[in-house]
Amino acid sequence: MKIQLEKVKPQEIEARSFEIITRELGDRKLDPDKELIIKRCIHTSADFEYADSLCFSPGAVERAREAIRKGACIVTDTQMGKSGINKRALARFGGEVYCFMSDEDVAAQAKAQGSTRATVSMDKAAALDKPLIFAIGNAPTALIRLYELISEGKLKPELVIGVPVGFVNVVQSKELIMQAGVPYIVARGRKGGSNIAACICNALLYGLDNRRD
Amino acid sequence: MKIQLEKVKPQEIEARSFEIITRELGDRKLDPDKELIIKRCIHTSADFEYADSLCFSPGAVERAREAIRKGACIVTDTQMGKSGINKRALARFGGEVYCFMSDEDVAAQAKAQGSTRATVSMDKAAALDKPLIFAIGNAPTALIRLYELISEGKLKPELVIGVPVGFVNVVQSKELIMQAGVPYIVARGRKGGSNIAACICNALLYGLDNRRD
Repeated sequence: MKIQLEKVKPQEIEARSFEIITRELGDRKLDPDKELIIKRCIHTSADFEYADSLCFSPGAVERAREAIRKGACIVTDTQMGKSGINKRALARFGGEVYCFMSDEDVAAQAKAQGSTRATVSMDKAAALDKPLIFAIGNAPTALIRLYELISEGKLKPELVIGVPVGFVNVVQSKELIMQAGVPYIVARGRKGGSNIAACICNALLYGLDNRRD
Repeated sequence: MKIQLEKVKPQEIEARSFEIITRELGDRKLDPDKELIIKRCIHTSADFEYADSLCFSPGAVERAREAIRKGACIVTDTQMGKSGINKRALARFGGEVYCFMSDEDVAAQAKAQGSTRATVSMDKAAALDKPLIFAIGNAPTALIRLYELISEGKLKPELVIGVPVGFVNVVQSKELIMQAGVPYIVARGRKGGSNIAACICNALLYGLDNRRD
């Protein structure tokens, strides 16, 4: 079989990808505020289901960008998620990315209380005295703990990105966080991932860049 | 809406997930050699398409495990991929994970020659004097460059994991690498990702662990 490669310059690959995504979305109208985020999730996954599954609380995108502009930090539930976020873009506004999953005190505490490291990571994050965006791409137990902390009045995040992936309590944890009364971006259903969590953070950051030019 | 959480102990979540995956795969028979890898990709993505899209060259899994056992190293095309691989499990056999994407010499070289950093990263990896497994979850240009290096006799990888995701030359680059005459695990089509690349590496490692117990 003869394989025909498309000739695209390196710096044009992303734009060409977004062209294809836009074309394949057809005459579907996306809310301009959400469009960049939805398309970036499709770009990251090649999965058009995100056009349907992504749910946004009213004004979530604008509020999150405002928080980033004021120096909000991001907390992830995996090192992969942290690794995928454009930390330089975030640092320009004073923010940084935290992931406590590999911390020894977190592991010890999780073992002691029979919970997950993700749960304990959220407790550790809640103790930070900073405006926070949570980007949860892996652990439903993290989302569930965030719901509890918010309900108990111990945490008031600027945004919760709720996109864990999987089969056990994933669907439920997302429904739960959408009832917590805080701004959210959630991928309803089983799908998501650390890559999706990171790409939503980056879409927020890049949208901000454009706005400031 | 009342949300019902499933009661599962932290240490049982993964096993429970695999039970659900097995049940939903129904009476579909998976090759025992490939089963763990296929199921782990589904576990990582909640996407059952991997049961159909994953392609293996004959004996790829066994050969890759043998290479790891002898100390093979893994090269990724993203920091996210590197971050997701269980480096401690790999280190037990003497291997380590490389990602050259953020190296300054790679960026400079890519700019000078009008190619991508992924392309130049593969050249840099090919200069390593080690048995190598390539885990490509992002850049089709990396896969294309691997094909060229292999064709020119400059590289003979132990395995190429070809799972970039996206819209420009992704499908083609995967077809190309399957014609290179080296062992491969490829997710045909547009889907894949750094998380999928990392999870295939981990499935290879965990399979090895079981075998050695």
